[in-house]
Amino acid sequence: MNNFIFNKSLIIGVGLIGSSLARGLKKNKLSKIVIGYDNDENVRKKCIELNLTDLMFDRIEENLNDVDLIVVCCPLGSYSDALSKIVPIIKTKCIITDVGSTKVSVMKDFNNFKINKLIEFVPGHPIAGLEKSGPEHGFEELFHNRYCILTPNDKKTEGVKKIKEMWEKLGMKIEIMEAKHHDRVLAMTSHIPQLIAYSLVATTTELKNHMKEEIIKYSAAGFRDFTRLAGSDPIMWRDIYILNKDAILEMLGRFSEDLSSLQKAIRNNDKNLLEKTFKATKEIRKEIEKAGQAGTFDPREKN
Amino acid sequence: MNNFIFNKSLIIGVGLIGSSLARGLKKNKLSKIVIGYDNDENVRKKCIELNLTDLMFDRIEENLNDVDLIVVCCPLGSYSDALSKIVPIIKTKCIITDVGSTKVSVMKDFNNFKINKLIEFVPGHPIAGLEKSGPEHGFEELFHNRYCILTPNDKKTEGVKKIKEMWEKLGMKIEIMEAKHHDRVLAMTSHIPQLIAYSLVATTTELKNHMKEEIIKYSAAGFRDFTRLAGSDPIMWRDIYILNKDAILEMLGRFSEDLSSLQKAIRNNDKNLLEKTFKATKEIRKEIEKAGQAGTFDPREKN
Repeated sequence: MNNFIFNKSLIIGVGLIGSSLARGLKKNKLSKIVIGYDNDENVRKKCIELNLTDLMFDRIEENLNDVDLIVVCCPLGSYSDALSKIVPIIKTKCIITDVGSTKVSVMKDFNNFKINKLIEFVPGHPIAGLEKSGPEHGFEELFHNRYCILTPNDKKTEGVKKIKEMWEKLGMKIEIMEAKHHDRVLAMTSHIPQLIAYSLVATTTELKNHMKEEIIKYSAAGFRDFTRLAGSDPIMWRDIYILNKDAILEMLGRFSEDLSSLQKAIRNNDKNLLEKTFKATKEIRKEIEKAGQAGTFDPREKN
Repeated sequence: MNNFIFNKSLIIGVGLIGSSLARGLKKNKLSKIVIGYDNDENVRKKCIELNLTDLMFDRIEENLNDVDLIVVCCPLGSYSDALSKIVPIIKTKCIITDVGSTKVSVMKDFNNFKINKLIEFVPGHPIAGLEKSGPEHGFEELFHNRYCILTPNDKKTEGVKKIKEMWEKLGMKIEIMEAKHHDRVLAMTSHIPQLIAYSLVATTTELKNHMKEEIIKYSAAGFRDFTRLAGSDPIMWRDIYILNKDAILEMLGRFSEDLSSLQKAIRNNDKNLLEKTFKATKEIRKEIEKAGQAGTFDPREKN
């Protein structure tokens, strides 16, 4: 028996997510042939070394005959460039989906290329990740038990059904929602925490050398969690902030107000407000643990 | 052969740190007898159940005869109360040390009780922790390979020597510095990250219920790291913010300036500034990993 959903898949951008997907498609036999492309030569070499795909393209448009799935996994700012090269030469029915962290901008990109009627676009976002980038860090279970959000115009198409099936077979739970709503939720759960982490770690880079060394030494106290986030791929994140600007600025405004309240409470020795706030947040943590979305942190070092 | 440094130790406050220390003192045979006291009856019961100490006191001043080490592990706001009960009745030579996250305030507390000449105070701070609280979460290796800062007035006393030896035997690296300097460094590595995490998670608690649920569901995207910090002990943290106010407000000012710059860069589509900042922070992360202070994060759930 075979359970292939696709015959020939092309993954564009074989970094952490792309390589995890490649591993998943192969291992679960979801695509008969899995092809990869990355515009970084070193990544292409690494993928061949690791034997991640059946084939690596040297050029994105090398041979798209009979490719029936394309997954765009490159940084959001490169979508237009990638699409402009592949869309015109697709001659057979093909679903194009993506894994990008903003969806309004991606729908705009996709809409600009709706000229080729053989293509169905299904914007998607598997919410899974790690601060490491590169194909050597990917692993198939990255998607297990995590949510994947799809934001198609029409929920009931063949393409949506297949993309849903693909992510489900990789262990994900699927939600369908409007792109704009996705972008607001993700601003809060992902883009703002990341920005704050970048910002705090950046504050450190500007301290005097002596102080900076000490902060690294004593980072086990909480700072290290911020640096973990701040170790993520710079280009990917740069594009996210530019492309989800409105939702991010809105949520950032709320955050700044709340931080100011806490700052004032400290200045005024308002123990009650501090205690009340800290107790409420502990509850949210418990709910995340209950929902099985907490991950596992071990203060010990890896050997 | 025996390597006891102390004959009879009393740990006041047997939470995460206190219980980890109790385990360490027993396992490494650093104190012949280890006694615990906690003002929470449930914690006392739990300690007996877990067989963590040789003895649990029901009252802090139960029997201090021949106690030669007291480690204050309760929240910073309770130091004065605890010291006022024990200092007057100590009749034999005794070293009192602590594990608190602010040191200027602790030195003030200690100075207020310098009336009893049999006591030597050694302010200390083992920089190790976890978001969990309570004796059931403690473990001896919590201190392995982490730093412990001591801030005594005089570095060359018998007490400093012994406290140093104790933490070293538990795997810690010792640094001696001025209390004021400690408080500034810790504001940046610990108190500010924690406050920001609290603040962001608090922002979520104020969103509409519908949105809140979604944020919990999709928290795997970075938000969960903040909630991990924000799951820490509320009373302990409340006291830290009140007692290290000056250093915290100073560092918070710097952070807010840097966050505003990033906010402005997003508003103005300044891709270069964003990319430059994100690349610089990635370097800091690398240094923390090199220094062996990064811990281990696994995106998979604990079973």
